[in-house]
Amino acid sequence: MTPAAKLGALRILMAESDVDCYLVLSEDNHQSEYVSPCDERRSYLSGFSGSAGTAVVTRGEALVYTDSRYYLQASAQLRGFELRRQEPELPTLEEDLFGALELGGKRIGVDPAVFPAARAEQWGGEWAKKAALLSRGGPPVAPPVIVPVAGNLVDRIWPNRPAIPAMPIKAHPLELAGEDVPSKLSRVRAAVADLKAGALVVTALDQICWLLNLRGSDIECNPVFFSYVILTPAGCDLFVDRTSLPGSEPALPPPVAAHLSAAGVSVHPYADFTASSLPSHLPPASFVLVEKGACSLAIAGGIEGGGCTLVETEHASPVNVMKAVKNEAEKEGIRKSSVRDSAAVVRFFAWLEEELGKEGVAGSDAMAEAALADRLEEFRAQQGGFVGVSFDTISSVGPNSAVVHYKPEAGSDAELRLGADDIYLLDSGGQYLDGTTDVTRTVCFGSPTADQRRYYSLVLAGHVNLGRARFPEGTCGLVLDGLARAPLWGAGLDYGHGTGHGIGAYLNVHEGPFGISGASRPGNLVRKNPRAQQVLLEPIVEGNYMSNEPGFYLDGEYGFRIESDVITVKAEATKEGGRKYLEFDCVTKVPMCRKLTDVAVLSKAELDWLNAYHEDCLASVGPLLKEQGDERALRWLERECAKLD
Amino acid sequence: MTPAAKLGALRILMAESDVDCYLVLSEDNHQSEYVSPCDERRSYLSGFSGSAGTAVVTRGEALVYTDSRYYLQASAQLRGFELRRQEPELPTLEEDLFGALELGGKRIGVDPAVFPAARAEQWGGEWAKKAALLSRGGPPVAPPVIVPVAGNLVDRIWPNRPAIPAMPIKAHPLELAGEDVPSKLSRVRAAVADLKAGALVVTALDQICWLLNLRGSDIECNPVFFSYVILTPAGCDLFVDRTSLPGSEPALPPPVAAHLSAAGVSVHPYADFTASSLPSHLPPASFVLVEKGACSLAIAGGIEGGGCTLVETEHASPVNVMKAVKNEAEKEGIRKSSVRDSAAVVRFFAWLEEELGKEGVAGSDAMAEAALADRLEEFRAQQGGFVGVSFDTISSVGPNSAVVHYKPEAGSDAELRLGADDIYLLDSGGQYLDGTTDVTRTVCFGSPTADQRRYYSLVLAGHVNLGRARFPEGTCGLVLDGLARAPLWGAGLDYGHGTGHGIGAYLNVHEGPFGISGASRPGNLVRKNPRAQQVLLEPIVEGNYMSNEPGFYLDGEYGFRIESDVITVKAEATKEGGRKYLEFDCVTKVPMCRKLTDVAVLSKAELDWLNAYHEDCLASVGPLLKEQGDERALRWLERECAKLD
Repeated sequence: MTPAAKLGALRILMAESDVDCYLVLSEDNHQSEYVSPCDERRSYLSGFSGSAGTAVVTRGEALVYTDSRYYLQASAQLRGFELRRQEPELPTLEEDLFGALELGGKRIGVDPAVFPAARAEQWGGEWAKKAALLSRGGPPVAPPVIVPVAGNLVDRIWPNRPAIPAMPIKAHPLELAGEDVPSKLSRVRAAVADLKAGALVVTALDQICWLLNLRGSDIECNPVFFSYVILTPAGCDLFVDRTSLPGSEPALPPPVAAHLSAAGVSVHPYADFTASSLPSHLPPASFVLVEKGACSLAIAGGIEGGGCTLVETEHASPVNVMKAVKNEAEKEGIRKSSVRDSAAVVRFFAWLEEELGKEGVAGSDAMAEAALADRLEEFRAQQGGFVGVSFDTISSVGPNSAVVHYKPEAGSDAELRLGADDIYLLDSGGQYLDGTTDVTRTVCFGSPTADQRRYYSLVLAGHVNLGRARFPEGTCGLVLDGLARAPLWGAGLDYGHGTGHGIGAYLNVHEGPFGISGASRPGNLVRKNPRAQQVLLEPIVEGNYMSNEPGFYLDGEYGFRIESDVITVKAEATKEGGRKYLEFDCVTKVPMCRKLTDVAVLSKAELDWLNAYHEDCLASVGPLLKEQGDERALRWLERECAKLD
Repeated sequence: MTPAAKLGALRILMAESDVDCYLVLSEDNHQSEYVSPCDERRSYLSGFSGSAGTAVVTRGEALVYTDSRYYLQASAQLRGFELRRQEPELPTLEEDLFGALELGGKRIGVDPAVFPAARAEQWGGEWAKKAALLSRGGPPVAPPVIVPVAGNLVDRIWPNRPAIPAMPIKAHPLELAGEDVPSKLSRVRAAVADLKAGALVVTALDQICWLLNLRGSDIECNPVFFSYVILTPAGCDLFVDRTSLPGSEPALPPPVAAHLSAAGVSVHPYADFTASSLPSHLPPASFVLVEKGACSLAIAGGIEGGGCTLVETEHASPVNVMKAVKNEAEKEGIRKSSVRDSAAVVRFFAWLEEELGKEGVAGSDAMAEAALADRLEEFRAQQGGFVGVSFDTISSVGPNSAVVHYKPEAGSDAELRLGADDIYLLDSGGQYLDGTTDVTRTVCFGSPTADQRRYYSLVLAGHVNLGRARFPEGTCGLVLDGLARAPLWGAGLDYGHGTGHGIGAYLNVHEGPFGISGASRPGNLVRKNPRAQQVLLEPIVEGNYMSNEPGFYLDGEYGFRIESDVITVKAEATKEGGRKYLEFDCVTKVPMCRKLTDVAVLSKAELDWLNAYHEDCLASVGPLLKEQGDERALRWLERECAKLD
């Protein structure tokens, strides 16, 4: 179907459903950030395939709202849709829905299985306030209303929509999980009881994997599987399918079935998790806890319709908070897999530098971005426990490195070939049975300009300023974000993405409940954004695992990002302090780019940190390279880790 | 009356008013931080005279809640009351009122003229939620209720309560105010109209002074006068008394009356601002705007009872926000008065060092803390435009310097005499016709220990790290606070007070709407505290004037604080930046303590900043010292400002 045909068909269904506007979100029924092809509705409709953005279709307009990470990508990909930039000083989607679209009093259709009940409530509240404001001293203004339209309208105009995947599920071994399922269920039940609730509904796929020590692969790069969980004091119901026959009994592999049965988990078909069947799994008239923002309008309806009371958690759910505190076994797995992953990246860079120096290779097809991403994956695949990449590799040359979430498409017009003096930004990660990684290094193998060295070194200063920080336990990501940005701010520079996100332990590469971000957003925007408050003010505690990734980008020229993964560990106590302080243990062991580092930009303390970090990289990764017999990589690593002064 | 007699009398009145508990707040009817003696009710009742703290009297208990700044002072001063520490991990007053005091379902009496309507609403909401939670699966739990008790109960047991002051009011000259009253009224009216409101009630005394270009002296150190303002599209009503006869017409000095009349301001007796008379000054059935948190239960009742609708501002009121953006005339006055104020402090330190070196002076009565504060005031009084001190001078020696809000009381047991090697912390400020100052320097004229030099230098690093920061306009105080604390955090140290507060232009030394604070508070406490969100997430913009005052304190030993005042100015644009960046212009020009500075603790950039700052101190203050003929101070300043390396 052509873009116009899709829009035409959708508008017919909108008219049938009596809505003036229809919203197509990025998320699936589980509020997943990355979704399965069957759930890529916004991408199918608008052409824009980035991981964040909302399509808004009215009778006359077709718009996609997204943030600065995706402006270039969206501009290039959108078909029949207009880009709406989400900037601090511009109206938000919610404000536009009220105002600019002139939708006052109109009906906004949404898929109730996807649309969060909390967002409907929040928007409704804001709209009611605004309508009351506008009605002062004039004729009454009716606010827009959210209208649940059962059955996703995009699915209905999507011929050959991919099937919902049901890939193999495996038990995650106890020696890697570090805690058995009964223990986790018992801790979560206690937390739910503390909140005086009689049941917990878990919709987030990674939370279910963590809770039940299971892993799947229904969503590319994310070792999760489609499912729901209902936890009550007496039982635990898992809704999941491993057969393609709708309505038939689930057929899980016997070891998985035994694992679940041993933990007292009952298994039900995924399709049985419906608004009408929900009440039969809940204690009668109970208070049912769902994570804030993770309860769809459909689930909310099922709970309330069945005589129970929906209680959204104040912020993150207990499962989300517990999952983010890695136990000793998880931390050991993360550290070990990070060393192996670092070895793969080091081997790749050593190979790349040698290749690039060969006659006629620079700028050739062998140096095409997608080819390099494939080559890197080969190096990762040689490491023990490798399952797959943890997200689509960002392998970006020159101007493409300025596109924050660039994905090379082999043979596309955008794809570039790495030349001798180009800036090359490589953001990639692996899923290993014992851990998940996410690492970015920006390199130049030729002769970088003075400007490039300065930009890179300012980003490095930010990375180190955060990486060497010590802070009281409980400090929030909004505050830590300022530490990473301060060196760039000092030069009047900044970057339009966050500095850090939680990372799973052989789970999603992006997880909650905290985030290091928001410091350069005007404070009033943090204040008025419930999602920002939920994430950016969440306390960071011992055992959290996250990225540290400041950057700087010049549109059309080049970009720099430096990302390592860190675990929060208890800092040595001081005699005067008294409080518990945390610091970051950097588990990524890939050296920074020597040619791009201008030591004059770094303070003495930052340079000392960098030299100690490089010693650590060599000591951690060197032995593995020897073991793997890669002399080239070992020599490269030794040279890159030599002391800087 | 003895403490027990006061409590006994109060409890009889509580029983008569049918309340189980009575709250005595620090604030007056205008939510002032510093209050007139007639409003020092909590101090009269409990003995504790600090500027923040709430007394709670139940039938069996008498408690005072205050924060870490005041623990030592409260412990020393409280009579018949028990101290309740306000710590992140301890229950808040609101939580205790619900829980620990076992007040479930009981009646909490408050003075409706003082108690903010927003707090009653917030507490009521929290309590209702908690009661609902506790009622799940059990017998219903009734939340406590706030009961307005007309006529303050403390006033009724306070023989010889001081009279409400009515000191002279003066017009603030246009060349210092920088904007005339009609222009201010017109800007505020436009903002009120934008918020669709028909009237604005102003209760904060400093906001009224700013709006009407008037100054008074009803509250010690604060150039304000007791009054209310009601602003409507057509008029402006000022409620104020300058006669001691209740009910009689106000008698303002003719120039002030003419100034007000020229601006179209009508004057009414202060006593006419009552719940019953309010409606006659408001457009019928209008929406009436009051700053969030500044509307007492009494005013809310007057507005709602009169058929109007109370609308609290979402955060700070337009007047508060406008007042905090200093105009060119105000900035010029602030810069000039700060140089004169700095000269006074420099002259004092030069004098002090010389005195201390004289035979038999160190440790003598001449070096008593209060005597030194008096001597400093004499130096200030010699500067042009001096009106008085801007707050009680904190002149604290040795262990007293660890008491954050210490106030020396001449002849008290606590008062110490400065010895040769003591740490001396001096936090003081002046009110000048052209500006308000607030400066802290910690000094040692003898031989400080290595520990003392290290602590001081870490505080200095924090002060400089913030002082030299550049940041996007709109960055909030919570983020900036982290920059000041990072060097201390790095050593596992911190301080229990904020880093910066807004300062008035010949107005209150503490003003809103923003604040640099909260970074070391767990993020979830910022999240759940509406007041913290209102202040700490308020954007900081060009033209704001504030303090930069990190510290470090070792109870019982010594404390360090370094405070200068800064104005936010636009930073030079960079070619790649694009956004508007701010930096701090430091208007305080008093050198740091050379003997306490360990340059090894500072980074090169911090040391460069410090040397440039010292050059600036000498260039700014030196000529004034010459003019004032103080050769001793000039020599001292030259020596202290010499380059450090």
